Amino acid sequence: MLTYELKKAPGVPLYEALYRCIRQDILCGNLKPGEKLPSKRALAEHLEIGKITVEAAYAQLLDQGYICSREKVGFFVEAVERPEPAPPQPPAAKTPETSSAPVLDLTINGTGHFPFSVWSRLQREVILDYDRQLLLPLPNQGIPELRRAIADHLAAFRGMTIDPENILIGAGTDFLYNLLIQLLGRGKNYAVEEPGYGKIRQIYAAGGVTCISVPMDSRGVIPEALGDAQVLHISPSHHFPTGLVTPLSRRQELLSWAGKTNWIIEDDYDSEFRFASHPLPALQSLSPERVIYINSFSKSLAPSIRISYAVLPGQLMEQFRCRLGFYSCTVPSFEQYTLARFLSRGHFEKHINRMRRFYQKRRNLVIDALSRCAAADKLTILEQDAGLHFLLQVDTQWTDEQLTQWLLSLGIRVQALSSFYHATDPGELHCLVVNYSGLEEPRLEAALQKLEQAMT
Amino acid sequence: MLTYELKKAPGVPLYEALYRCIRQDILCGNLKPGEKLPSKRALAEHLEIGKITVEAAYAQLLDQGYICSREKVGFFVEAVERPEPAPPQPPAAKTPETSSAPVLDLTINGTGHFPFSVWSRLQREVILDYDRQLLLPLPNQGIPELRRAIADHLAAFRGMTIDPENILIGAGTDFLYNLLIQLLGRGKNYAVEEPGYGKIRQIYAAGGVTCISVPMDSRGVIPEALGDAQVLHISPSHHFPTGLVTPLSRRQELLSWAGKTNWIIEDDYDSEFRFASHPLPALQSLSPERVIYINSFSKSLAPSIRISYAVLPGQLMEQFRCRLGFYSCTVPSFEQYTLARFLSRGHFEKHINRMRRFYQKRRNLVIDALSRCAAADKLTILEQDAGLHFLLQVDTQWTDEQLTQWLLSLGIRVQALSSFYHATDPGELHCLVVNYSGLEEPRLEAALQKLEQAMT
Repeated sequence: MLTYELKKAPGVPLYEALYRCIRQDILCGNLKPGEKLPSKRALAEHLEIGKITVEAAYAQLLDQGYICSREKVGFFVEAVERPEPAPPQPPAAKTPETSSAPVLDLTINGTGHFPFSVWSRLQREVILDYDRQLLLPLPNQGIPELRRAIADHLAAFRGMTIDPENILIGAGTDFLYNLLIQLLGRGKNYAVEEPGYGKIRQIYAAGGVTCISVPMDSRGVIPEALGDAQVLHISPSHHFPTGLVTPLSRRQELLSWAGKTNWIIEDDYDSEFRFASHPLPALQSLSPERVIYINSFSKSLAPSIRISYAVLPGQLMEQFRCRLGFYSCTVPSFEQYTLARFLSRGHFEKHINRMRRFYQKRRNLVIDALSRCAAADKLTILEQDAGLHFLLQVDTQWTDEQLTQWLLSLGIRVQALSSFYHATDPGELHCLVVNYSGLEEPRLEAALQKLEQAMT
Repeated sequence: MLTYELKKAPGVPLYEALYRCIRQDILCGNLKPGEKLPSKRALAEHLEIGKITVEAAYAQLLDQGYICSREKVGFFVEAVERPEPAPPQPPAAKTPETSSAPVLDLTINGTGHFPFSVWSRLQREVILDYDRQLLLPLPNQGIPELRRAIADHLAAFRGMTIDPENILIGAGTDFLYNLLIQLLGRGKNYAVEEPGYGKIRQIYAAGGVTCISVPMDSRGVIPEALGDAQVLHISPSHHFPTGLVTPLSRRQELLSWAGKTNWIIEDDYDSEFRFASHPLPALQSLSPERVIYINSFSKSLAPSIRISYAVLPGQLMEQFRCRLGFYSCTVPSFEQYTLARFLSRGHFEKHINRMRRFYQKRRNLVIDALSRCAAADKLTILEQDAGLHFLLQVDTQWTDEQLTQWLLSLGIRVQALSSFYHATDPGELHCLVVNYSGLEEPRLEAALQKLEQAMT
């Protein structure tokens, strides 16, 4: 008799699990074409599951042509084509570091807690409900349902009043930045934060615009240092990697700099994960006519979901339609409908709330572990109020390069704050950027043990 | 008793159709929370369907929480949250023309025959098989499975020998052209075909490069006219809109032009639909080191599936990794895995064969209808051997503008060949570009009747 250990996995109903086991046996040849399957009652008793579960599994196998039914005789395995020989494997990263994976990687983002079962249920619903509508050409701004859902989300979560007509959906922020270059003009000078996220600078450079690095003080980007920039790209609500939040007074200075001719690109990339109770209003809300707001679901949901969006000032959206309206939308309709439902039914909010609590706990765990470790008296934690990373000041004579190399030799990968300076040399800052979002607890303990051994 | 007319729609098994009907009744309130559903046997007899179908439908409703089961009593409707009030609607186009839709539109592409049932079955399989793997970050070139499947397809269909490592997946050709500008350099001059597809020129212009229009003779782009271009963008296997196929001798002349320093971008956009039995080899096969091959699944599958790809010469792929490797992949993993299976299991080939026969029939139908119509003696059909459109020469004194406006007033939207000239004025060509891929038979008859009435 067929024997399977059917685990109730989240998102996979029992009948699907059974269907999957039998299908696997058919595909790999354990069940031969023509072979008779046990009766539904017998299999249900044997596996100690409900008869209705077996019935649903058999119905699905029947429907998909894996088995056939002969009246009053039973169910028989059909001859089926085999799938590709290799079982699905996660995509292998090509970088050599993966072969000697560090014990603890404090440079990557986590994805572990994405509500996959809800998402895949919505995917099945979307297939069922929209059917061939999913094949129709897309409006190039993105589907209206998703833009409406995003506007509602921004209203509820960020207090922003956005017309869905001003939202532009794109396959990732990289793509949107490139569109913005075409929209704002390649002849302008684009100012980026120093220190800052290196990729922003790379994208602008590849897009063919002149990048200016703007130094920051304790209140954020210094307006007097903007020189002849016409566009400023900033993350005022949570600067990466310093964690700095630009206060209202400085925001207003930056908006006066923008005036009526310059543009500000507000990168609000992880605003969802701020733990402080009263986030400052978005720059976009203060000056919707000069600020382009950008956010992404790749960070808050999963990196493989390539959906980002820009909120454009009305005047720019008009120009987009007029001058760049020939571009096709880059996000498939299927993903757009799924995300629209995920947002409008409240799943995103629930997910974010859950993640915020989860990350807060994880942060406390890391901070607690650091305060207990052998090197505790040499460590100071800075900027821990927002986002998914904090800064760790280390009292050491070593250079930043020596420190990160030594940690890497112990299996701890972490970046120095100084590595985020691109145009200037800040000297030795003795400060590490600790991204704890991808961290796993047992690895944290193991890494700290190694650290202690190495220090004693 | 619940009464539904269950139509066996392709791709929707009967139990899903029943599940969907009942769910709809629950969601819209026709079935109230707490209400008892008929027994499985009774409903099966009433609807004259198998009991196993009802069982599978109830199992799915049960699993998704729409109903609950009380042992030995029966099934009861659960209290569920309502979905968004509006039923799903196809995205509304914003152009004013849609409100007065023409009887016959000979400018758009068809999507009607996409094998949606196979595609959505593969989507369900991918959800089931890959599960949380779907959330992992993607390699920026695209997943290896899809690149391998594309290489196999190109080998079987186009006789091309491609290393999957040289394939780059992107969300649409628009996106890939922009990447190519960044890869080949913005300082170069890009030559495009005159006449030609206007969007190519728009994308290059928006990308900030200098576009040169190159005239064509009966053998394609004229090499002597390439002037100081360093990059040539062509569709030698089926030029749009003339339908011209560049013969081997001219291809070789163009490759000698490319030599060791220039680049050719080969746009093979609808090679799948050529009806001639022996297509010429791709330029890429003749000179894999100087030719960038581009193709898309948006045309051969559906415009809402945003997957295109480029085959880069090894040297360029190396440069992409080195200089642009920071870009994230723009196509979601879910769509990539689904397409990989669609290709590797032979569904794409079947689909293309079916579509080729279908379009050939449709083309014959259109040509037959034109040869019977009142204006037949004024019409000559040109270039009907390839692709999804042909040219229609009209013997008339009217200007092209007058002709297309008059046809539009009769409800027939069609573009004049002269409208595809962008840099030069070809004068009155009295030639129409007839794209028959989106055409529906009853509309063709109605339009031709109107035409006859107007002419008599």
